[in-house]
Amino acid sequence: MTQSSIITDLPPFAVSLGDPAGIGPEIVAKSWVMREARSLPPFFAVGDIQSIRAVWLGPVAKVESPEEAAEIFDRALPCMQVADAGEIIPGTPSIDGARTAFQSLEVAVGLARSGSAAGIVTAPVGKEQLYSVGFTHPGQTEFVAERCGVSRDNAVMMLAGPSLRVVPVTVHISLAAVPAALTVELIRARALATAKGLHRNFHIASPRLAVAGLNPHAGEGGALGREEIEIIRPAIESLREDGLDIVGPLAADGMFHARARETYDAALCMYHDQALIPIKTLNFDEGVNITLGLPIVRTSPDHGTAFGIAGSDSANPGAMIAALRMAADAAQARITYAAG
Amino acid sequence: MTQSSIITDLPPFAVSLGDPAGIGPEIVAKSWVMREARSLPPFFAVGDIQSIRAVWLGPVAKVESPEEAAEIFDRALPCMQVADAGEIIPGTPSIDGARTAFQSLEVAVGLARSGSAAGIVTAPVGKEQLYSVGFTHPGQTEFVAERCGVSRDNAVMMLAGPSLRVVPVTVHISLAAVPAALTVELIRARALATAKGLHRNFHIASPRLAVAGLNPHAGEGGALGREEIEIIRPAIESLREDGLDIVGPLAADGMFHARARETYDAALCMYHDQALIPIKTLNFDEGVNITLGLPIVRTSPDHGTAFGIAGSDSANPGAMIAALRMAADAAQARITYAAG
Repeated sequence: MTQSSIITDLPPFAVSLGDPAGIGPEIVAKSWVMREARSLPPFFAVGDIQSIRAVWLGPVAKVESPEEAAEIFDRALPCMQVADAGEIIPGTPSIDGARTAFQSLEVAVGLARSGSAAGIVTAPVGKEQLYSVGFTHPGQTEFVAERCGVSRDNAVMMLAGPSLRVVPVTVHISLAAVPAALTVELIRARALATAKGLHRNFHIASPRLAVAGLNPHAGEGGALGREEIEIIRPAIESLREDGLDIVGPLAADGMFHARARETYDAALCMYHDQALIPIKTLNFDEGVNITLGLPIVRTSPDHGTAFGIAGSDSANPGAMIAALRMAADAAQARITYAAG
Repeated sequence: MTQSSIITDLPPFAVSLGDPAGIGPEIVAKSWVMREARSLPPFFAVGDIQSIRAVWLGPVAKVESPEEAAEIFDRALPCMQVADAGEIIPGTPSIDGARTAFQSLEVAVGLARSGSAAGIVTAPVGKEQLYSVGFTHPGQTEFVAERCGVSRDNAVMMLAGPSLRVVPVTVHISLAAVPAALTVELIRARALATAKGLHRNFHIASPRLAVAGLNPHAGEGGALGREEIEIIRPAIESLREDGLDIVGPLAADGMFHARARETYDAALCMYHDQALIPIKTLNFDEGVNITLGLPIVRTSPDHGTAFGIAGSDSANPGAMIAALRMAADAAQARITYAAG
């Protein structure tokens, strides 16, 4: 899964700073410091420059445009000011901070939609805080999808790390609601979006998909549940008829060790933790959330605001760096995909 | 989690060969070859000696008693003949083979119960085959529990590897049946058995337990399911009042990366795959199934018969070796526990 990071002729990436009181500003600044060592593409922060200054003493420069950001990127972390978050106390979220986070996301998406930015990387937001300022989407992914004119069902969350890529078929619903939420159509839609997304964003022309069962031992022939027989297997068979390279339903517990992972490019999982447990077990500090099915590139570090450690200079920028690199690779892959 | 392997004054361990057409005989023989390199305790096979000869050219000797086995162990793999499995074709299970597997288990348990063996290590059986010869238990664990006079509910399956120990609260039921199966009483019973088992078998006097939530993000305060609020948290609080060192409910996806694992000795999981996915992702070739709550030591490699590769000399003995070492450590820990 090594990926090239040679960037040619792309505008810089827009990085929304997320909640100004979270670790977003710190990990963006730390990523800028590592820009050469980690071959990061040019990028600029979108948010309130004070949220960076509150946690970092390095060079940061207000910019008005992506072009200006690209020019200054070698010398300073460029920041496009979109709102005033008021007094910023790292670790203590505020209403003004939530408004700034919302605004940052909106502006970043707009810049990517217009082509002024090569894509967006979104730092973490506090959902409770966002809800309090009128944000009505379940998360940033759904918001970005809507702004891109894509229905929620077609914007697919993939978690990707150096050793595994997973797509949960159902996401933020209770475990009890999972069996009834699974349908042949939903599994088909997720699998098709995953296959296309792997081609378009990861340069994998003939992706190999592995599908997990829902039940222990993938149902053990029906003895431990019938969803494999009635829903998952029919979905897989119809996808295979459509030409997909897809196997399953597999016993989920046997899918994620090193040898098993070599046999597929992405695992389709039936519920949140079935997907998130293995990726976070393996790639906790470098897991990236990439949204498939959008007209723009969008990645995000796979962690939260971590208010508890904000301002202590202890946040690990690994996942943000990985998100920036993956965004760059995806943007390059899309150029090839569009040309091919 | 390093464990001592100094064995003193213990009789040898009884190793049931499992299905003679599976990989059991091969991994037992390969373990005997590694007995010095891996500091294994003395052990003897229980089953049909022909099943070993069918896949291995090394020295194997029929023995009549554990004492004889202990004497010969340095020079040959001792085997106690309990039945004639008829013609043995590795990879092709048979009725006679299933009967032999059943008989091996029965004899091994009896030897451990009487104190003639220091404990049992069980090689994998084919459940379908066993069912066809009148075996009525869900698995070997329940059979061993019954023969030891322990109720199924008090015999607890723990999966343990070098980097993680997990106990599933519910095991072989469909995912849809999990929420209704969870009760405060069941979680309490599993947690208490786990804490006692860690002391008795792993020499951990004050075990630290971490309990997973059922739902994504451990229910996110009730927004994604209420089992955490209504069942899991009350169980944890009452266990804490009883003096247990126990935390949770934790978001399951954040519990199994390296730093998180350092904070507990065992994770209590709500369902099969929540426990089995992380342990098999991390410790696929060395995962051991250890039954807590029994009067005897019982471990097992955490894999199946692998009929597909039986007879090809390609089976990895890693988990069997780990199971033998864990059995030896548990037997030693029990001596200390009983003395203390």
